Amino acid sequence: MAEVESFTLDHTAVKAPYVRLIATEHGNQGDTISNFDLRLVQPNENAIPTAGLHTIEHLLAGLLRDRLAGVIDCSPFGCRTGFHLITWGEPSTEDVAIALKESLAEIRDTIEWQDVQGTDKFSCGNYKDHSLFSAKEWSAEILDQGISSDPDVRQ
Amino acid sequence: MAEVESFTLDHTAVKAPYVRLIATEHGNQGDTISNFDLRLVQPNENAIPTAGLHTIEHLLAGLLRDRLAGVIDCSPFGCRTGFHLITWGEPSTEDVAIALKESLAEIRDTIEWQDVQGTDKFSCGNYKDHSLFSAKEWSAEILDQGISSDPDVRQ
Ligand SMILES: N[C@@H](CCSC[C@H]1O[C@@H](O)[C@H](O)[C@@H]1O)C(=O)O
Ligand SMILES: N[C@@H](CCSC[C@H]1O[C@@H](O)[C@H](O)[C@@H]1O)C(=O)O
Repeated sequence: MAEVESFTLDHTAVKAPYVRLIATEHGNQGDTISNFDLRLVQPNENAIPTAGLHTIEHLLAGLLRDRLAGVIDCSPFGCRTGFHLITWGEPSTEDVAIALKESLAEIRDTIEWQDVQGTDKFSCGNYKDHSLFSAKEWSAEILDQGISSDPDVRQ
Repeated sequence: MAEVESFTLDHTAVKAPYVRLIATEHGNQGDTISNFDLRLVQPNENAIPTAGLHTIEHLLAGLLRDRLAGVIDCSPFGCRTGFHLITWGEPSTEDVAIALKESLAEIRDTIEWQDVQGTDKFSCGNYKDHSLFSAKEWSAEILDQGISSDPDVRQ
């Protein structure tokens, strides 16, 4: 079976929260995309429950695009410890970390329920599994810990 | 806040399981990427629990790459009704649906626990939240329903 970079990361050697570049890839015509690991909670110590993670997903989809050019997708890890972020080009981990911090701060401080996109049966695949309360509490805790853009991956 | 295509889909008008092209995007140099909606269960009627979804994620990461060129990422929706698939180029929804069907059939019929990548504390962010049993049962149910590559999106 094809090998996947994420499974070669030593998850015991990282210290979350952090932004890590997983890989850059190059298209045939010369375009570059970047794939980032936005690790919000410490692997195998914690995991964001589905309702809070789902609301954070819907909010990051808008808030990161407001701050970073070339966002292609930002989707949760199945392990619920963070998100993949795929972008055009090669933004620095510093730029991504600033955009992530600002977005989580906006969730914590400013966002109200009516600001969340995709929270009814028409616009969401599972509209009953949302929690802005959870999204705000997790965002506050992650920000309190600080988000590194130079993670100490002791591989 | 930036508007996101996924939230404009009428989730009451689709019939899962299906493969749908969300968008193609073009880089400055002329490369194209495609973003697909792999919708495995019916929105707001069902959602795959986290352990099964997580194991399906780890397996699709290898199995789809074995079958489709140019896979960039395949990550779950926060709503747990399916996955995003991001690829280089413009594979048809038919080709993606075939790769998805074959991958789910391999999960259902062939995969054993030792075949699953990323199931210990070193290689996974939440290694205790896996279920190959769940992954197999969901794969069987999805395949029984058939996977459309031309979904009836009545928008
Ligand atoms: N990753 C996307 C944003 C979420 S799309 C997936 C969501 O749409 C809806 O189908 C579901 O609510 C699901 O959670 C992006 O970055 O554009
Ligand atoms: N979407 C990727 C594969 C999973 S990476 C995310 C996983 O790695 C590990 O950190 C966690 O177990 C998480 O579930 C891909 O398609 O390459």
